[in-house]
Amino acid sequence: MNGPTSTCRVTFLPSGRKVLATPGTLLIRAAREAGLHINASCGGTGVCGKCRIRVEQGSVVGGIGERLSPAEREQGYRQACTALVEGDVVVRIEEAGGLLGGQLNSGVPERHRARMHFFDISELRETGIFLPPVEKFFLELPRPDYGDRQADAGRLLRGLAEQYDERHIVINYPILRRLRRALREDDFRVTVTLERPVNKRFRSRVLHIQPGNWTERNFGIAVDIGTTSIYAQLLDKHSGAVLAERSEYNRQLSYGEDVISRMIVAEKPEGLAQMHDLVAASINGLIDAMLADRHIGRDEITSITLAGNTAMTHLFLELEPHNIRRSPYTPVSTMFPPIRATELGLHLGDHCMALLYPAVSSYVGGDIVAGVMGSGMYRTDKLTLFIDIGTNAEIVIGNREWLACAACSAGPAFEGGGIQHGMRAGEGAIDDFSLDPVSLEPMIMTIGGKPAVGICGSGLLIIIASLFECGVLDERGRYRRDLACDRIRPGRSGHEYVLVRAEQTGIERDIVLTEVDIDNFLRAKGAIYAGVTTLLHEVGLAVADLEQVILAGAFGSYIDLDSAISVGLLPEMAAERCLYVGNGSLMGCRMSELSNHIRRDVVQATQRMTSFELSEVPSYKDQYVAALFLPHTDAALFPKAAERRRLLHALHASGRRND
Amino acid sequence: MNGPTSTCRVTFLPSGRKVLATPGTLLIRAAREAGLHINASCGGTGVCGKCRIRVEQGSVVGGIGERLSPAEREQGYRQACTALVEGDVVVRIEEAGGLLGGQLNSGVPERHRARMHFFDISELRETGIFLPPVEKFFLELPRPDYGDRQADAGRLLRGLAEQYDERHIVINYPILRRLRRALREDDFRVTVTLERPVNKRFRSRVLHIQPGNWTERNFGIAVDIGTTSIYAQLLDKHSGAVLAERSEYNRQLSYGEDVISRMIVAEKPEGLAQMHDLVAASINGLIDAMLADRHIGRDEITSITLAGNTAMTHLFLELEPHNIRRSPYTPVSTMFPPIRATELGLHLGDHCMALLYPAVSSYVGGDIVAGVMGSGMYRTDKLTLFIDIGTNAEIVIGNREWLACAACSAGPAFEGGGIQHGMRAGEGAIDDFSLDPVSLEPMIMTIGGKPAVGICGSGLLIIIASLFECGVLDERGRYRRDLACDRIRPGRSGHEYVLVRAEQTGIERDIVLTEVDIDNFLRAKGAIYAGVTTLLHEVGLAVADLEQVILAGAFGSYIDLDSAISVGLLPEMAAERCLYVGNGSLMGCRMSELSNHIRRDVVQATQRMTSFELSEVPSYKDQYVAALFLPHTDAALFPKAAERRRLLHALHASGRRND
Repeated sequence: MNGPTSTCRVTFLPSGRKVLATPGTLLIRAAREAGLHINASCGGTGVCGKCRIRVEQGSVVGGIGERLSPAEREQGYRQACTALVEGDVVVRIEEAGGLLGGQLNSGVPERHRARMHFFDISELRETGIFLPPVEKFFLELPRPDYGDRQADAGRLLRGLAEQYDERHIVINYPILRRLRRALREDDFRVTVTLERPVNKRFRSRVLHIQPGNWTERNFGIAVDIGTTSIYAQLLDKHSGAVLAERSEYNRQLSYGEDVISRMIVAEKPEGLAQMHDLVAASINGLIDAMLADRHIGRDEITSITLAGNTAMTHLFLELEPHNIRRSPYTPVSTMFPPIRATELGLHLGDHCMALLYPAVSSYVGGDIVAGVMGSGMYRTDKLTLFIDIGTNAEIVIGNREWLACAACSAGPAFEGGGIQHGMRAGEGAIDDFSLDPVSLEPMIMTIGGKPAVGICGSGLLIIIASLFECGVLDERGRYRRDLACDRIRPGRSGHEYVLVRAEQTGIERDIVLTEVDIDNFLRAKGAIYAGVTTLLHEVGLAVADLEQVILAGAFGSYIDLDSAISVGLLPEMAAERCLYVGNGSLMGCRMSELSNHIRRDVVQATQRMTSFELSEVPSYKDQYVAALFLPHTDAALFPKAAERRRLLHALHASGRRND
Repeated sequence: MNGPTSTCRVTFLPSGRKVLATPGTLLIRAAREAGLHINASCGGTGVCGKCRIRVEQGSVVGGIGERLSPAEREQGYRQACTALVEGDVVVRIEEAGGLLGGQLNSGVPERHRARMHFFDISELRETGIFLPPVEKFFLELPRPDYGDRQADAGRLLRGLAEQYDERHIVINYPILRRLRRALREDDFRVTVTLERPVNKRFRSRVLHIQPGNWTERNFGIAVDIGTTSIYAQLLDKHSGAVLAERSEYNRQLSYGEDVISRMIVAEKPEGLAQMHDLVAASINGLIDAMLADRHIGRDEITSITLAGNTAMTHLFLELEPHNIRRSPYTPVSTMFPPIRATELGLHLGDHCMALLYPAVSSYVGGDIVAGVMGSGMYRTDKLTLFIDIGTNAEIVIGNREWLACAACSAGPAFEGGGIQHGMRAGEGAIDDFSLDPVSLEPMIMTIGGKPAVGICGSGLLIIIASLFECGVLDERGRYRRDLACDRIRPGRSGHEYVLVRAEQTGIERDIVLTEVDIDNFLRAKGAIYAGVTTLLHEVGLAVADLEQVILAGAFGSYIDLDSAISVGLLPEMAAERCLYVGNGSLMGCRMSELSNHIRRDVVQATQRMTSFELSEVPSYKDQYVAALFLPHTDAALFPKAAERRRLLHALHASGRRND
């Protein structure tokens, strides 16, 4: 464990705004936290030198680049993009914007992220549903004698009924074969591993028997089978704790980044087995590493719960995915029986059961169902919008009474796909951005403070929102041709905005955002927003009725809520009504591993989930076209965003008048 | 098909008794049928020549031996033991017994066998319980389209619910993997093989899926796993008919005739696997032969039901039998889950389920439970005694309300064990016998009319009964030393009676019945009778309360009821109240293959069956000692037998007076 982290007070002049920052924070990030704009067009590499500030009290580490003369350094000038906070400090921001600089700075929007929603074990305990689907029971049975010569199996079942009120139990055949010896090895003291049925009226199953008391050694695994990455957790079913967590790329990636190309491989001879083997190998790698981490034996894992989208689940189970990608898009199954983990090629004990999250349809998979379960959406009274944005975006709307879901063909824009300089979130990706509303000079930040190499999804959202708010982009996503801004220029894909000039990048050419990029982004955000409005419309509700938004998936954690609202990706809603659940699929698997009640609820929730095929809902096309604008053709849906735009435009106009 | 069998009328003089016989019947057997005694001490081989008779009308085939002079042959004399009936015939029996011969002949008791109880399929149909545990359903499903894009699995289940009202169904994982292809091969026309649960509240299971309609090709197998022999039937589950029937020795015999020696082998390393493999090989041999007989494919067998005693069942399932033979005699299990037939090493399809009859205890096994089910005892109102006599004898007493059962350590006397010249029923075994009450000369018949080589169980019973009825044996089973009978002589094992003299046998030494043999017989019959009276006593009833006797097992079909009552093996009861069910275990398996209701009833019946360990019931020892007499120390239990003995003794005395 680390000790308590000390925090430093950073004060910015002339505004006097203050933030608390941990030592090592880049000064430019601290300014961003304070809602202050510092010109920085090179992405934080110290090349452009525009971000210089002056340290007036205290000190910082670094921030000394070629662009600063020895005299300036002496006077306390530093480059904010490479200077690290190390204690309380007061700095003055250069007022490039002229007289109104201080005032202008305050126009930079604050970042609002969704609140993290944590998995709450104590709630499971309090409501009495902390009851793993596979549990261990310790029995001390009476020895057989003349007065009690019941068979070994009957004796075991009697013990479970008398000592734990567990009834309607089948003993698996392999267990019967070991039963006599197992009972007698420690004088009729045994630990029984019992698999509960989803539905109480069905039968439990004895999966394993061990001489002695091993009830405290009961572990489970939760796995989210993502198209790109696989995430796994090792769980202590006794305490509910996560003992280890690992992820790795899905090894199927070598056959294509998207699901469709893998389904095509799966249709070739041996292709399905190949796809299965690759994902099983990925999962086995994670299992092996986690078990080694915690010195837990393979045989101590009693169950593994997995969730993935419908195609991933089919490939993992070696179910033929052919009709998932062919009209009318029917999977082999949306419900999956418990399967012995070894039958799926997993490196686990013979007795370990693999439990697969059910899907709703070909395009709303077990990962979404797991997210709905993990986020608790299935039992809330609030009308909730659940969005998981990945290569596709899946949305679920509803509450404890009903659930409507759909997949939106958003395309990969949020993962950097279809964007000229798009990239996954990684070092050098532009992930934050602001625009001085008067000078229209950018402040650019990259992941890891490395020279910019591209734009990741969350960066793209903020860039487009900023450009639109400051009037650089119009409602149709076109650059204003009449603007006095040398960063806007004609390019091969319509006009483009130069984010970082070649000499300041890590790729030696200009990093630009083209109008074609923006079109792709608009189609993605439009598909999602239109999905939301269409689903709401189908159930007779409107956006204004939504009481809560739950964001899931990696993208959800980085999304700037104000930007998302500015561009019309999310409906206008107070930040405190937005929750982020992280990997909802993994959280749902973990919950199922710890509570059999949730497994039962899953079945009910899945049955309650009505799946809509958006392309077939007549109103969808209109909704989609209406959503291709910034933020929307119906601006009345986003009144607060409109107000902010009006203020920023006024600032820009007043700034220009003063030039 | 054979044509109708013609029958011949055989008239015996001087008594004038007539019987109908099929052509080819030995004349001596026909006389026996008519209740007539013909001296024949060589066992029907034509050696002794004592059995000569004279044909007065019609003719016979054979019967001409060395003992007849050409003149005698000319006069129509023949030897009854080798003469075959070929048409209507009138024969006169030699009256060796003097003046009263004719009258004496009429003293030979008729043979009464138990009525055969047949398996009644129409009853299953009428009561609506003809519903195999594994059934096939033909589905014509709608093709998926835009209005109905349910997953393949859901579509299948919906079809079963809508078309057959079959619900709560799990689809086995291997079926899911084949489902997409199977549904589309014949345009969504498929045959589904469904395994029903024993208890309706649990779930059914899809075991198999085939494109097209195969509902009429649904076959099952019933197997009785006997210690000595294995019997199997191939069943048409659509019609209920038995298509083929086969038996063979249990290949475990090479490791010992009795169960104990095989259990000892099973405790050695690899011994259990060895025992399993041998019995599985036996069963596979029968399956292969029956399938070849009827050109039925291995994959068309959807279930196999097996029953055996508890030890045999354990060996077949590779459950450790160690504690079955060790105090306090606890088996591993008395209930067995459905197991995939392939897991048990049977040559059947992957989808075929093996259903094992449950047992009651270590000594009352699934074969007895199957007999109780097959005979219908579990649902009769009559107070019934069920007896299965094999190496051990198991008895069940009760009716639809309650069932009490016990195993009697009868020993192998009824299978020829522990008897100096005992043997299994086979060629040359003495299987019928009568004694002239005046001359005390025997009439001996052997199986196949071959020279006598030993005594089989049914013969032993008749011999001892005859000797006792005619006063050659006293109540303690001792030969009367004072009797003028040169066949009684002292031997190494007490006195003995010479049944066949050496020169007339197939073994070139005298075939005798010793007092030690008789003691062994008394212990066997005493154990059974004492078991019956003890069970009755424990439930507050007496022998007189019994309303019905059901005999099962190979021995039961040959048993002469009057002899069994004479010696005190069975309680005195009218022959029409005795039923014989043949191989009750096999019949029970067949019923379970055809009616799932019976599978459910089995569980209930097994739970209703109270098992008594006779050796621990205080009154048993007294009952046993009392039953070691002929017929019993309490002669009042057998009043009719006493009356017949009195008559025969009077005949003997009057005959001797006339000498």
